[in-house]
Amino acid sequence: MEKNHLISLYKSELLDNVIPFWEKYSRDEDFGGYFTCLDRKGGVFDTDKFIWLQGRQVWMFSSLYNRVEGKPEWLEMALHGAAFLEQYGHDGNLNWYFSLTRDGKPLIEPYNIFSDCFATMAFGQLFRATGEEKYGLIAKKTFENILARTGNPKGKFSKAVPGTRPLKGFSLPMILCNLSLEIEHLLPAELVEKTIATVLHEVMEVFYQKESGLILENVHSDGSFSDSFEGRLLNPGHAIEAMWFIMDLSVRLNKPELAEEAVKIVLKTLKYGWDDRYGGIFYFLDIKGRPVQQLEWDQKLWWVHIETLITLIKGYQLTGNQECLLWFEKVHDYTWSHFPDPEYGEWWGYLNRQGEVLLPLKGGKWKGCFHVPRGLYQVYTTLEKLM
Amino acid sequence: MEKNHLISLYKSELLDNVIPFWEKYSRDEDFGGYFTCLDRKGGVFDTDKFIWLQGRQVWMFSSLYNRVEGKPEWLEMALHGAAFLEQYGHDGNLNWYFSLTRDGKPLIEPYNIFSDCFATMAFGQLFRATGEEKYGLIAKKTFENILARTGNPKGKFSKAVPGTRPLKGFSLPMILCNLSLEIEHLLPAELVEKTIATVLHEVMEVFYQKESGLILENVHSDGSFSDSFEGRLLNPGHAIEAMWFIMDLSVRLNKPELAEEAVKIVLKTLKYGWDDRYGGIFYFLDIKGRPVQQLEWDQKLWWVHIETLITLIKGYQLTGNQECLLWFEKVHDYTWSHFPDPEYGEWWGYLNRQGEVLLPLKGGKWKGCFHVPRGLYQVYTTLEKLM
Repeated sequence: MEKNHLISLYKSELLDNVIPFWEKYSRDEDFGGYFTCLDRKGGVFDTDKFIWLQGRQVWMFSSLYNRVEGKPEWLEMALHGAAFLEQYGHDGNLNWYFSLTRDGKPLIEPYNIFSDCFATMAFGQLFRATGEEKYGLIAKKTFENILARTGNPKGKFSKAVPGTRPLKGFSLPMILCNLSLEIEHLLPAELVEKTIATVLHEVMEVFYQKESGLILENVHSDGSFSDSFEGRLLNPGHAIEAMWFIMDLSVRLNKPELAEEAVKIVLKTLKYGWDDRYGGIFYFLDIKGRPVQQLEWDQKLWWVHIETLITLIKGYQLTGNQECLLWFEKVHDYTWSHFPDPEYGEWWGYLNRQGEVLLPLKGGKWKGCFHVPRGLYQVYTTLEKLM
Repeated sequence: MEKNHLISLYKSELLDNVIPFWEKYSRDEDFGGYFTCLDRKGGVFDTDKFIWLQGRQVWMFSSLYNRVEGKPEWLEMALHGAAFLEQYGHDGNLNWYFSLTRDGKPLIEPYNIFSDCFATMAFGQLFRATGEEKYGLIAKKTFENILARTGNPKGKFSKAVPGTRPLKGFSLPMILCNLSLEIEHLLPAELVEKTIATVLHEVMEVFYQKESGLILENVHSDGSFSDSFEGRLLNPGHAIEAMWFIMDLSVRLNKPELAEEAVKIVLKTLKYGWDDRYGGIFYFLDIKGRPVQQLEWDQKLWWVHIETLITLIKGYQLTGNQECLLWFEKVHDYTWSHFPDPEYGEWWGYLNRQGEVLLPLKGGKWKGCFHVPRGLYQVYTTLEKLM
């Protein structure tokens, strides 16, 4: 693969296909915010507004404005979503709802801490773009709320009987690896250092299981293995995505050995998670090879593949490991031959195991303007750094 | 298809294959109750105990004892599970947990009202088998709890913000159609009449949508259509299963027109829900043909197909409608060529759209000793009633 060709492929997919798709179809001019449930052609098939995706799109456009080019229309797009989020997205105390009706009425309670994470990302990045103090304040206060909730993120919505099998999940420390760098500019240096130290320990020593070389999705709260559906669960895409957050931390902390370790985990995870029969990376697996609870376990998801591309190219850039490059080519080929829709633009989200389109949508309850554009940006800018 | 051949096929599958499988592999001799997470060969791959499945297996063995033959080992098997349920299954006030550890510690809170429904069925049927008053009392009191919770079945575990989009689900009135007959012997006549009248109205006039001829999974609490993911959702297997409960009510109430109506709904649902490309009935669909939330929407599930066989043969027996017979043959062929495992016994639960085995298990978190044996029993006994 020729580097310059790849750079222009990823960059033009971002700027000439994906971003224009969301600019054209996702704005709700009547009620504010964004539509994310978009069918193949960009038509709106549902109008509910999910805070994850509202926040992620504000982040995406702010980020393009900050990092790619100071286009006023990108900033305006970010502000359009931020105004809606600020007015309707939370309960008045910056506890972020999970979803709203089209006109902003709260539908689902603030049970999901990742709504708060994506709101933090959104307003942190928008503060960088505008210098507007109130945005920085929203990000900072929401981040403090998140930290206060880490011990019991689901709060009163948890269905687990306290004490019987206390588990903790990988998602939160994983996302905090990314979030702590995302909003570093808003936080006291000691808080950043402390948060980074904690989540690095959690990801690389608690959820990472030495014997298998794999990362578990859930462990007992004391860090030990739980031989249960939750405890045996692997989410290869998750583990691999986390590894590029770790690689970013390795640069930030100037610890190249962290990147080496992350690469080891990535390669192990890919070997375990790759579907030798049809290609692509499985969505869920069981570390003991037992049947999983998730009926969608064998499906091929857009975010899994695009996040893996980011991780592999960063891994190669930071360590020079040739296996990263070989895997990058393999995942690149699978991704580009299955996910983009040449006819109507943007990418499919959900394929079945065989690689056929499972749901004819470009956006939905979980897929918005985030993984594809972020991934395209991350890949081409990492490629640009290669000698 | 020859009637006597079919009778002996379904009957011997029940008595010589399926029931022996559960007798052999599911008993937990050390801690009581049943294992339900059984791999292809009957090996236990997880030891958690799910109240739905514990209750259903108690019901199944009690029911065989009451209806097929008074075998002491069947009664003993039912009592084995009932003792475990009685001791560990609820919080002391007959609020039934969702799941327990192998040794009976509560894992997941009583958030799911169907745990209570299956406990009611279990103890109601066991009371019939034993005449033991305490079992009748457990069934009756649990049933009263269920009725008291119908307005807000999820209680404090509901994540919906009150008032914004109040929805009610089809599952509860559907199961009450069955449950009210299951435990009729334990209830005052007026309560039975009243409950039946209410749920019949809900199923046949509220969730049944005249324009489409289909049954919706969720409607606004005032009965109107909700143009949302939940409101557009169809679950063909659910709707079809409910129709044999309605047919049983049509016999009980001596209202043959009810069975005629149920048959109409079944045939409409089958036409909508059948997969013309690979055969089998889809798991979930959207009434407007839009993408659904459920990634497993195109899978072929054991319970959907076996419940459909029950409904079709009952529909034919009660109405003589030839279309029921044609569909019975079609669904019978699909079912028998895809679900039974000739090598190790019992039936697969989860197939992909193409009809290949998706999870190599005979039982799990949701599949236990219930739909297959109940269905085999219902089909052969209905066939026996045909002229």
